[in-house]
This record gives sequence, structure tokens and C-alpha cells, in this order.
Amino acid sequence: MSTTSPPLVALDWGTSALRGALLSAHGEVLQRRAFDVGIRGVPPGSHHALVQRHFGDWLQTPDARCLICGMAGSREGWVEAPYRACPTRLDALAEHITWIEPDRIGIVPGLSCERDGVPDVMRGEETQLLGALQLLGADTAWLVLPGTHSKWVEVCSGVVSTFATWMTGECYAVLREHTILARSLVAAPDVFDGASFDAGVVHALRSGSLLQSAFGVRAMALFGRVPLERRLSLLSGVVIGEEMRSRPSVQDSEVVIVGSDELGTRYQRALALCGVRSRCVGEDAAWRGLGAVAQAVWS
Amino acid sequence: MSTTSPPLVALDWGTSALRGALLSAHGEVLQRRAFDVGIRGVPPGSHHALVQRHFGDWLQTPDARCLICGMAGSREGWVEAPYRACPTRLDALAEHITWIEPDRIGIVPGLSCERDGVPDVMRGEETQLLGALQLLGADTAWLVLPGTHSKWVEVCSGVVSTFATWMTGECYAVLREHTILARSLVAAPDVFDGASFDAGVVHALRSGSLLQSAFGVRAMALFGRVPLERRLSLLSGVVIGEEMRSRPSVQDSEVVIVGSDELGTRYQRALALCGVRSRCVGEDAAWRGLGAVAQAVWS
Repeated sequence: MSTTSPPLVALDWGTSALRGALLSAHGEVLQRRAFDVGIRGVPPGSHHALVQRHFGDWLQTPDARCLICGMAGSREGWVEAPYRACPTRLDALAEHITWIEPDRIGIVPGLSCERDGVPDVMRGEETQLLGALQLLGADTAWLVLPGTHSKWVEVCSGVVSTFATWMTGECYAVLREHTILARSLVAAPDVFDGASFDAGVVHALRSGSLLQSAFGVRAMALFGRVPLERRLSLLSGVVIGEEMRSRPSVQDSEVVIVGSDELGTRYQRALALCGVRSRCVGEDAAWRGLGAVAQAVWS
Repeated sequence: MSTTSPPLVALDWGTSALRGALLSAHGEVLQRRAFDVGIRGVPPGSHHALVQRHFGDWLQTPDARCLICGMAGSREGWVEAPYRACPTRLDALAEHITWIEPDRIGIVPGLSCERDGVPDVMRGEETQLLGALQLLGADTAWLVLPGTHSKWVEVCSGVVSTFATWMTGECYAVLREHTILARSLVAAPDVFDGASFDAGVVHALRSGSLLQSAFGVRAMALFGRVPLERRLSLLSGVVIGEEMRSRPSVQDSEVVIVGSDELGTRYQRALALCGVRSRCVGEDAAWRGLGAVAQAVWS
């Protein structure tokens, strides 16, 4: 971004939260805000007012511009931003902004791909990918973006060829809350125990399916093999271990984990148990990615 | 059962239902009843009264006896009936009844086993196994008992060496109701479409994990690849297909499916797609099994 660029209001509007950062003309994060306002709960026609309410002061800065990534661009979001089909260059995102206000407020497209006739999609992660690679100064890497819907992506020379989704975070939550496992987890404290997490990963790697390994958690609790305070760590290990069991082969590559410190630590442990090297890039990847898109659009 | 045996009140009391059959001295099913009274909802101390209310007329028959299988024998049930550890002979079940009223009302034990240090359990299926083998006139078979928690069991010369559980039915329900898939399934009619079910099975067999294949159902719906009325069949195929992908190898054996006609048909289709022969034995296997236990106890 040139030194004459105006500030950027960078928004990541997902299913469960609206996060924002004010970026300087140099792409530095000046301020951050987060609100529990998922895109799904917003009535049609009220998105603009909501952004004004939470970020109006930032947008009042002369010439301020706004770029948005995430589910805001979905069919059930603010304005639908069509998916870019893979393979696609990450630097092509800037050429396919869906403008809400021309040249001022725009939505970054998500990506789609297809394997064996089955489609796959991401929204928001494409921007984090771009930011993570910029933070690393790389254009080729295997990346995993853990979360509700974990994504594995291979980027070669700035091109996303294909990617794949695992419903890891969401399945952890439903196993914990809505299945027979819930009965073994009543009042279980959510403290992290590394050894129990690792045992869960190993159990899942040996198993053939989460349908099977998850029941093991119930049976272990039933037989008093795992105390209450370790059960959530064990289950977390089982579900993340299932993702590891079925993840893409990365050969000798180091895997770049893009996400929160808490999830990053767990994925790094799980990958180490698979003999895979990894490094973590924090959640600021989204802001770096939106900054990079802005630079391409307005420089 | 000798012709002088009194009638048997056979009960299968599970997590979500209480089913009963009145068996003649010859083991014929004379009457059947079913109630939506899962064992979990019954307050401690009120089990006996509840059985009296629903089956009191049967139990009044002179010398009537009662055998119960299922979750009634769990720690949260009526009276805890300790698990029998595998390997165990199915005909040893009769030697390990937990008596509620001596020699009159008893609970059949469940089975437990252990693989790689992880325990597994069944309650109720052991009785269905016994009954299914009697119905087939066999003592050696590979069996699958589909349901909330699907069980795969190998029986050799009447001995259950080990078994394994898949949370197939339960995970189908939570994926359908509590994940992002629910948004694609609003008002989806629950009609069975064979081609969509088969497509789901094939998709799961090609995938490495349900965490991944289930997300494909969401993406296919998003891209208009599967009409609303076929989505539940597709999801059913994906989840049962995941069980097939990770099931035990049965070599050239025919698999015996023990369960309802509806589930039996689905499992038979899914197994055929894997090149595995199968045959179905109906839900009366539980009554036949309880009859066999009664015969061993009282003959």
C-alpha cells in the first residue's frame, strides 16, 4: 500500500462473529474490534446500518475504504459474491470484488473446487491464505486452517489448485453436546490436558473412522479409564486425530497452521504425532490478506 | 423350551423404547407391545411399577417368568447387570443373569471387549445375536446390527471373540439436526431414493472421513446438485457408507444383518456396493434370543 493510501476498514464477517480491524496506509493494524453478530442473525437490509453502528467512526475517516471477507458474501449474507473456481491465483481475488458501494465497500469472493464430482467451498479462508503467505514471504505451501470447518489447502506459486474441508470443530461440538457422549461430559471442565489430547489423537489414528473412535470415549468414561477433567481434551484429540488420519499427504512439507493460538497448539501437537513439521501463523492473517487485496485494488 | 414351560414375558428395554413380547411355552410370539418409555426417563425405584402397568396382565399368568435385555441392565437402568468380557460363548449368557426377583425376573448381561486398550460395550445386541444365529441355524457368522450404535460382530462356533461399535444412527441424526447440513435439509421429506442413497455410499467410500464426506452434502445442496427430496437419502448413504468404508474385513463371508426391514434394506444395498453378500434377519431376533436364554435357564 503506498504511503498516500487512505486507511482500510478490514472486516471478517463470519457465521458467528463480526471482527474488524482498522489498517493504516502501511497495512499496520491500528485497532481491532469484535462483536457476537453472526451474519446469519442479521435481517435482510440491515447489514449496512449494522456496520455503520459498529465501525461508523472508522468509516468517517476521509477516503476510508472497506473490504469484507467471510460469510458476508454468501447467499444468506449481505450481498452474494460469486465463488472463484479453483485452480485460481490468490492475487486474482482483487480482480473479483463484489462492490456494495463502487470502489469503496466491497466483498472478497470465496473459492470453490471440485473432486470426484463433489464440490467444496470456502469463504474467508482464501483471504487468510493470502495473508499467511505474505506473512511468511512464501508463495508455495501446504496450509491448514482449523476451525468449525477446517480447510487443507496446497498453494503452488501463488495458485490454489484444490482444497478440502473437514467438519472438525462442528463435529466436536455436536458430539460433545448432542450425542451419548454428552452424558459422560456433564460438568466436565474445559481445561487442556496434553497427555489426554495426545492419547485421543493416537486412538483416532489407529481407528478407521470417527464413528468408531468417538464411541471409545464413551466406553472409556464408562469404565473409569479417564477422569472427568480429562475427557474434553481426550475428545478434542479424537476429533482432531480423525482429521489427521484422513488429511492429505504432504510428503516432507512443513505445514502452515493458520488460526488462533489455542487451536494452533493443538494442531501442532497432533501433526507432531504424525511426524509432520508445522509452524503457526496467527489470526491476523485475515487483516494482512485484506490489506494485500486493498493494495492490489487501489495501488 | 419344553411343552411344560410356563410363558415368558420377553422385554427389550432400550434407551428410547420399551418393547415386549409374550412367548408361548414353545417360544412362539403370541403378542407384542411397544411403548415410548426409554430407560433413561424412568425415575429410580419406579421400574417395577412401570413394567406392571404395561405388562401386568402377562405377568399374572401362573408361573410367568420375565427376561429383560438392553439398557435396563446399565448403570443408569433398573439394576446393573455386569458386562461379560469377550471372548465369551453366547450360551453362557444364561449362566450370568442378574436376578431382580430370584428365578422369576432377570436381566441378561451385556458384553464388553477391548481393542488397543480401548473398551467397547453392547447391551441388547448380544441377545439379538443369539436369536439371529438360532433363526439361521448357524453358530459361525459375521453379523451387523445397525441402529443408533451399529455393532459388527464375528461369532465363531458360538463364541463372540470381539466386536466393534459405529455411532452411525446417532451421527446421522446430529448431522441432520444440529450442523450446517440442517440448513440444507429444512422441510426435506423423509422419502427413500435408492439412487441418491447409493451415490452417498459411493461418495463416502471414496472419501477418507465422514468429517469430509458430510460437508460434501452441504456443498452439493449449495450448488443445486441434489434436489431437496433426495437429500436425506444422500446423507443416509454418506453416513452408512462411512461405516462400510471402515467396517471389518469379512473376506468372502456373507454378512447377516439383524434389524428392521428399513435399515436392513439400506445396509444390504450398501454392502452390495462393496461387493459383499448379505441376508437380513428381522427384529424378532431379540425375542428368539430371550426365548433361548429362558430355555437354557429353565429347561
